[in-house]
Amino acid sequence: MKKTFTMEKTTIIEKAKVRKLRNGILITGLPGIGLIGQVVGRYLVEELKAKRIATLISPHFPHQVFMTRKGGMRIVKNSFYLYKGKKRDILILVGDIQAMSSVGQYEVATSILNYCSGIGLKEILTVGGYSTGTITEKRNVFGVATSQKLRDRLSKYGVIFGEARGSIVGAAGLLPALGRLYKIEGTCMMGETHGSFVDTVSAKQIVITLSKYLGIKINLKKLIKRTKESQKILQQVQEEVQKSMESQFEAAKKVSYIR
Amino acid sequence: MKKTFTMEKTTIIEKAKVRKLRNGILITGLPGIGLIGQVVGRYLVEELKAKRIATLISPHFPHQVFMTRKGGMRIVKNSFYLYKGKKRDILILVGDIQAMSSVGQYEVATSILNYCSGIGLKEILTVGGYSTGTITEKRNVFGVATSQKLRDRLSKYGVIFGEARGSIVGAAGLLPALGRLYKIEGTCMMGETHGSFVDTVSAKQIVITLSKYLGIKINLKKLIKRTKESQKILQQVQEEVQKSMESQFEAAKKVSYIR
Amino acid sequence: MKKTFTMEKTTIIEKAKVRKLRNGILITGLPGIGLIGQVVGRYLVEELKAKRIATLISPHFPHQVFMTRKGGMRIVKNSFYLYKGKKRDILILVGDIQAMSSVGQYEVATSILNYCSGIGLKEILTVGGYSTGTITEKRNVFGVATSQKLRDRLSKYGVIFGEARGSIVGAAGLLPALGRLYKIEGTCMMGETHGSFVDTVSAKQIVITLSKYLGIKINLKKLIKRTKESQKILQQVQEEVQKSMESQFEAAKKVSYIR
Amino acid sequence: MKKTFTMEKTTIIEKAKVRKLRNGILITGLPGIGLIGQVVGRYLVEELKAKRIATLISPHFPHQVFMTRKGGMRIVKNSFYLYKGKKRDILILVGDIQAMSSVGQYEVATSILNYCSGIGLKEILTVGGYSTGTITEKRNVFGVATSQKLRDRLSKYGVIFGEARGSIVGAAGLLPALGRLYKIEGTCMMGETHGSFVDTVSAKQIVITLSKYLGIKINLKKLIKRTKESQKILQQVQEEVQKSMESQFEAAKKVSYIR
Repeated sequence: MKKTFTMEKTTIIEKAKVRKLRNGILITGLPGIGLIGQVVGRYLVEELKAKRIATLISPHFPHQVFMTRKGGMRIVKNSFYLYKGKKRDILILVGDIQAMSSVGQYEVATSILNYCSGIGLKEILTVGGYSTGTITEKRNVFGVATSQKLRDRLSKYGVIFGEARGSIVGAAGLLPALGRLYKIEGTCMMGETHGSFVDTVSAKQIVITLSKYLGIKINLKKLIKRTKESQKILQQVQEEVQKSMESQFEAAKKVSYIR
Repeated sequence: MKKTFTMEKTTIIEKAKVRKLRNGILITGLPGIGLIGQVVGRYLVEELKAKRIATLISPHFPHQVFMTRKGGMRIVKNSFYLYKGKKRDILILVGDIQAMSSVGQYEVATSILNYCSGIGLKEILTVGGYSTGTITEKRNVFGVATSQKLRDRLSKYGVIFGEARGSIVGAAGLLPALGRLYKIEGTCMMGETHGSFVDTVSAKQIVITLSKYLGIKINLKKLIKRTKESQKILQQVQEEVQKSMESQFEAAKKVSYIR
Repeated sequence: MKKTFTMEKTTIIEKAKVRKLRNGILITGLPGIGLIGQVVGRYLVEELKAKRIATLISPHFPHQVFMTRKGGMRIVKNSFYLYKGKKRDILILVGDIQAMSSVGQYEVATSILNYCSGIGLKEILTVGGYSTGTITEKRNVFGVATSQKLRDRLSKYGVIFGEARGSIVGAAGLLPALGRLYKIEGTCMMGETHGSFVDTVSAKQIVITLSKYLGIKINLKKLIKRTKESQKILQQVQEEVQKSMESQFEAAKKVSYIR
Repeated sequence: MKKTFTMEKTTIIEKAKVRKLRNGILITGLPGIGLIGQVVGRYLVEELKAKRIATLISPHFPHQVFMTRKGGMRIVKNSFYLYKGKKRDILILVGDIQAMSSVGQYEVATSILNYCSGIGLKEILTVGGYSTGTITEKRNVFGVATSQKLRDRLSKYGVIFGEARGSIVGAAGLLPALGRLYKIEGTCMMGETHGSFVDTVSAKQIVITLSKYLGIKINLKKLIKRTKESQKILQQVQEEVQKSMESQFEAAKKVSYIR
């Protein structure tokens, strides 16, 4: 590590050197609608016992540090985990937050793509929620993809293409769309959900679809239980991140206002 | 395409290599007052069967991807189309959105000018609306231009100079004004309009004026009909773009607020 | 002029090459409290028949172009004028607007200082208003300066040091404060004013003080009259600039909201 | 000092050349909850008669200059002071303000770390407040640290680890967290406080803890008295900084609105 560097740009810090992924696919599970991506991403990391290989920090994330139960601290971040599957290498991206501005979103997305492209990534699959405002018993899995080949391939696993309407905001859309500039095709897989609560049923449906598509075995028993546990933590994290939006300056304002 | 690049700046991706425009003029049809520019730009592209030669993406556009009816996705963007007319080459710039900040507007405008200047552009003509708050039967076409020569030339085609007052916000003003730094003169042509609805009558008037000025034949019959059809799409796009302004963070806030 | 350049940063375009100022002083008259700076700056330019030598444009100004009465257009900008006085060269900076963010203010200020330092500037004198919320018959001229030498020198001309309290926001403070990094000392001269109207009486007081300090003759007769005339123009400019704050996006929002 | 430079980035201006710190520790006292950091930082500087060695200015601070009682001006800034203790060198960072955005916070933090790392800093200890919303007679001193070694060491002086919950916003968290990238371990020491007033009792508790940990003698008698005096100044500074948030543009808006 050189002594002088700069955090004016998004920075990826490698924990373990990865040379070349074997038919690598990136699965992203970042916060978004119904927190489906985040729930799926974290469950995959835990169940597959994926190994953390890199950390992404960014000035476009809140200027905030979490206090840990042991009296430690950790910065707001995204993390890359690697699972070396039988058929292919699976990279999983999870994190506390997405970048807070459009300029930040584009910068973080290209940082991710530069890193992944450098280790030979072949495919991107982002996980998100598709908000319907109603609660359906069956949670469909909708998809959009950058190539017909991917649409054909994923349709076989029950992903519905051509029905979802509107737009995808954030990394779930930007990563596969910008991936094309790197000659990496991609899919955004969306769990049908109400949109106003953490939807573990929809998340489970995504995990089932992913396990088939990726040819990996994932124990589903713990998903609901674990999710309930981790939901508390997620909730705390989200609340903390929101508090930070009441910026330093706001804090100072309150102080001087009252005294 | 090199593997590592950056989207921290506005980027123009060339689909077809253009060497040198023949007395090239850039016509811009971007969203703005009465959506007149956008309606005119899209109609020209369709009627002239202009060929897409380049795409412009920018971190100053919303961090958003549209889902297509086929189950594909496409990023928010602007596009350059080329029509090789008998008299001169016509470049048409259309798009979903303009940059969302002043810093973004200047960056996108100079990206456009750098690109156009590089392929020998000679003239800029931006199309916008001039909001009056009233509905007049005759829709005047107002203009401002960076040179007397252009004012003289366009006056012959009925463009009224010296009557419009106030300022022009966005690319319609910045492109010709900054164009002078590249020794490219330019005009902003404004269709008189109420300002609160999509004004196809005013757009038609602009198309008539442009067809005369550019010496091209444009079938006007389909303008009103086509516009009505495309209006729905435009409306959807605009609504999607607006939704994205309710940023990722807002979405996360709602989720954690209710649960 | 090279064909490819960038407006991602503040840019100064020289109209006339200035080699080296003779004991040069920069007087700034930018918009601010009571518009005193702007009134003084414009009057000096007119009365001294100062010659425009450079234009400053910036992505931190609104993305906006004014329509002129002749059917032309001009971008929002600041301008440098030069008056070669008997005793010393006087550079006058006037303009429509100041940068709209802190990052922009610092960037524009250092652009100005880099340019001025390059042509040998020796002193900075910014003009602003000092808002009291009351109307006093006598309008005092308050000052703050970066050196005791300047305070001593200006005190002789009636400028009151050590009485004004609080802080100076914008270029009037930043320029002399950052000037110290260039070894250029400076003063901010503030006309006492109510703060809620254009104060020509206070502006006149500043002009009188400046004419003595700079050893130049300035006809004061036309100040009140001219100011009344130019007040209308200033007002229009300010209103236009404000309208632009209702950004392009806001405009688009309105359109789609109503139709 | 070179004549052309740029303030587009955070800049540290060295007043005195420091070659290499002797087991150097950085104590930061910047504005935050209960202004505890700021009170502690300023008291240490005064009591230890620490020498100012560097000034930090940033475009991410407000574009604002304070008027001094002598008729001078000083820019909004942070300052580094050095105290050469018997056991180790103590660097103290105090200032008017923290950066106003996340991008700014990261940039300022890395500027500080680049500078400190360059002069051989070994440890970071930031001081902040821990808001409880209640007033307790005994003010606990809570801590989080980046290493178990630091937690063990500071626990001996009564700092409580593992009890504080939530997150730390701003430099107090970012500096030790980012410090790890420079191989500098760090602690955030937080004084328990209500959060809505300047808490000199809690600040005193921090000073006691620090004096023991750092092995320096600090006269505590003057803390409460001095703090009351400096509180007025702090309050004025905070009010000024807030006023500046009503930007230049807001000021211009008011003027043109009323006239």
